[in-house]
Amino acid sequence: MTTDSNDTTPQDFRPEARSPRGFADKRARDLRAERAILEAVSAVYERYGFEALDTGAFEYADALGKFLPDSDRPNEGVFALQDDDDQWMALRYDLTAPLARFAAQNWETLPKPFRRYAFGPVWRNEKPGPGRFRQFIQCDADTVGSARPEADAEIIAMAVEGLEAAGLPRGAAVLKINNRKLLNGLLTAAGADSAGQKLAVLRAVDKLDRLGVDGVRLLLGEGRLDESGDFTKGAGLKGQAVDQVLDFVQAGSSGGRAATLDNIARVVAGSAEGDEGLLELSRIDAALTSLGIADDQAFIDPSIVRGLEYYTGAVFEAELLLSTTDEKGNKVTFGSIGGGGRYDDLVARFTGQVTPATGFSFGVSRLAAALRAAGREPGGVARGPVVVIAFDQAHMPEYFSVVGRLRAAGIPAEVYLGTSGMKPQMKYADRRNAPAVVMLGGDEIAAGTVTIKDLDAGRQAAEGLTDNAAWKAERPGQQTIPRDQLVAAVRKIIGG
Amino acid sequence: MTTDSNDTTPQDFRPEARSPRGFADKRARDLRAERAILEAVSAVYERYGFEALDTGAFEYADALGKFLPDSDRPNEGVFALQDDDDQWMALRYDLTAPLARFAAQNWETLPKPFRRYAFGPVWRNEKPGPGRFRQFIQCDADTVGSARPEADAEIIAMAVEGLEAAGLPRGAAVLKINNRKLLNGLLTAAGADSAGQKLAVLRAVDKLDRLGVDGVRLLLGEGRLDESGDFTKGAGLKGQAVDQVLDFVQAGSSGGRAATLDNIARVVAGSAEGDEGLLELSRIDAALTSLGIADDQAFIDPSIVRGLEYYTGAVFEAELLLSTTDEKGNKVTFGSIGGGGRYDDLVARFTGQVTPATGFSFGVSRLAAALRAAGREPGGVARGPVVVIAFDQAHMPEYFSVVGRLRAAGIPAEVYLGTSGMKPQMKYADRRNAPAVVMLGGDEIAAGTVTIKDLDAGRQAAEGLTDNAAWKAERPGQQTIPRDQLVAAVRKIIGG
Repeated sequence: MTTDSNDTTPQDFRPEARSPRGFADKRARDLRAERAILEAVSAVYERYGFEALDTGAFEYADALGKFLPDSDRPNEGVFALQDDDDQWMALRYDLTAPLARFAAQNWETLPKPFRRYAFGPVWRNEKPGPGRFRQFIQCDADTVGSARPEADAEIIAMAVEGLEAAGLPRGAAVLKINNRKLLNGLLTAAGADSAGQKLAVLRAVDKLDRLGVDGVRLLLGEGRLDESGDFTKGAGLKGQAVDQVLDFVQAGSSGGRAATLDNIARVVAGSAEGDEGLLELSRIDAALTSLGIADDQAFIDPSIVRGLEYYTGAVFEAELLLSTTDEKGNKVTFGSIGGGGRYDDLVARFTGQVTPATGFSFGVSRLAAALRAAGREPGGVARGPVVVIAFDQAHMPEYFSVVGRLRAAGIPAEVYLGTSGMKPQMKYADRRNAPAVVMLGGDEIAAGTVTIKDLDAGRQAAEGLTDNAAWKAERPGQQTIPRDQLVAAVRKIIGG
Repeated sequence: MTTDSNDTTPQDFRPEARSPRGFADKRARDLRAERAILEAVSAVYERYGFEALDTGAFEYADALGKFLPDSDRPNEGVFALQDDDDQWMALRYDLTAPLARFAAQNWETLPKPFRRYAFGPVWRNEKPGPGRFRQFIQCDADTVGSARPEADAEIIAMAVEGLEAAGLPRGAAVLKINNRKLLNGLLTAAGADSAGQKLAVLRAVDKLDRLGVDGVRLLLGEGRLDESGDFTKGAGLKGQAVDQVLDFVQAGSSGGRAATLDNIARVVAGSAEGDEGLLELSRIDAALTSLGIADDQAFIDPSIVRGLEYYTGAVFEAELLLSTTDEKGNKVTFGSIGGGGRYDDLVARFTGQVTPATGFSFGVSRLAAALRAAGREPGGVARGPVVVIAFDQAHMPEYFSVVGRLRAAGIPAEVYLGTSGMKPQMKYADRRNAPAVVMLGGDEIAAGTVTIKDLDAGRQAAEGLTDNAAWKAERPGQQTIPRDQLVAAVRKIIGG
């Protein structure tokens, strides 16, 4: 058999080993974090009575809602290809469009309201960049078939509990709530009722964080000239309407949801749609209170926009409140780590029936990064396996017997199965982040003992010893013990 | 706000709500099974020191190894599309090709041997059919960079433990082991050493189950005429070689791995490659014994072929031993539920360096089906949430308070959030597979009590009552209790 890797095989074509642009290989630490988050959040969502659903990676392109069925190659923004029967399919770009398709397809037999959560990869055919991938994991929860504001409240409460269960300490994040109908109603009452003008207002409001009140004021009116000399045309609102919008977006109160609702009531009073939005928010507030969600966990913020145009009522945004520093010591503001809202039109695309729906979605990698920024490694810090050094083929049965004992005790362990000597084996153990190595030489085997070396203690001790000879004499962290004490000794090392 | 779903929206084009051919929507029961299997198997693999890895859905088509880089549309068997930079990408069709690419790409910095496990969807662009999907979940474990037979033995031991951890009772499945070098050596010694002839022999041997010894004898020689009159050309072996091959494939002994090794030694003696294969198998046997894997869990079966041409040494197949009956009472033989082996050439495609590798792979849905056939629902039988009936908007705070208590106790629960009356709410609870419904009418709220109805007990009792009036009088499974006894009462219902 082959025991080294220096042979070469004849071959005409050697492809370069590289992953496609924008697709990342994920190693153990990131996968551990992802799984810990998804497990914690799933448990919360199931306690709320949401059932798991997973749809396939592909949807027919027409079902995704971005395409005309007759366009030549409809791959703008998504990964699309033509099936054998010439139908265009595309990889899902979110989990909401497949839910809308599933709900429409199975509406008659589903329990209604239909409450499901889902997680899995989604794909965006966009230009990749640093930290910007073309595949990432989303986790969504949605209620389809309930127009009750209490359904929105449950989604918000679940998002709050989910983020906390995933490890974000209370106070590290907040759910911000708004309702599209408030601003819509206000604008309609002010005579600014074209869809284009409303969208321009939303875009202006969305820049409040970045441009401040004065910048947004310009964008709500005639327009704004930025530092580089570029002019952005404004929404064209007149003086009083501009003031009303600015009053509205600043109506958030540190006095809690009830105080903010009072502020909003004063600004949107007199608009039917605004009143409807206000009533919905009041009922969301009441349900959140019943569900034990306090003002510091979820508050009403009229400046929240959410980018997607399909929201029709309540909108939610989960924001990380911590500001952290990156590896270079620069301050990093995380901002949004998830969002959602009410979208009553998606299922109607298929059925023609307005079907009220509401949901919340977050990106799992982004939450993992947020948790790390908050000083919490999701799933805890993982250790590698205990590595049993392989000195001699003849002693393999002894090595396997030892790893068997460790594994039976639930401790990850392995025999080194390469063909290198002692030093590379120690390096291997180090690369695997092994807590300890176990050595069984002829002496140990004859005596029924094992020598165990605590790699962390060894590293720490080595730092304190300047002299190689001293290190060799002391052998820090190393001990020889009876074989039946091995599990206890390893437990002590891992536990400490 | 909209409270019913009878409005229609104007829209020109309504796509049909359907999932693409060969892609399944998975509901809670199947997902629960999948997750339970993957969690149990992952825990075993991690105890063996294997680290998790996940690669992206796409690989460059040349890296998948099926294509010429200049072919026009290389989508035979896979889902392929051209990236913006004109490179062809394809969705992975297994987890081995991406591992080979990853290992080649990162070889310098990886701990070696590199031991990883992975699970996730793979895609095959094949004709879908009943139970035949174009996307399914695989779970793989591989060791790259060790030629030691002990590495094969660990993979086999992990497969055995993994299947048992997933819920297959000992004795329900077995790992069958063979080594390609045995038959290869035998054929070379017999003068049948062209690659084409060897492949024809493998194909013939692979039909042993279906055609029996006499059928295979014909296929090893001149050929075989089947019942329909079709003639299959044989491998063209001569008399003695045919006998040797048949002796070899029948060398498996009920006396265990050691007895089979003795039988094989007699048949393949005198061939260098055969001796090498025999030595490898002996070391696999010894390591399995050290690892505590008994003869009934893993045995040597020289008739095992495994379809893929890339195996170069040991091959493994996990076979379900139970024969079960389907819904129509027909006997179903499950057969193979996973397999693997040693493939030393895959990484060399990229690097030119022979890199020994070995692994095992199984399909998660197939294992779930096998577990169900063995009478074990993976993950256990799931119940739906406790449903709190919504009688009156004014009492929502009371309903939410009650579900809050249940959730805090870890019991899935929800308030019904549709707008229908009592009867549809009971039907909803039934569809959700709810263990119980909770009712809070005005009387209960005034008295601080709840009425709880055990749906299972109710169903059972209803079957025994022929008279609707009697049912109404008895209200089987229904009780009114103080609110603070609710959690205990629900626990009793779920536990029973």
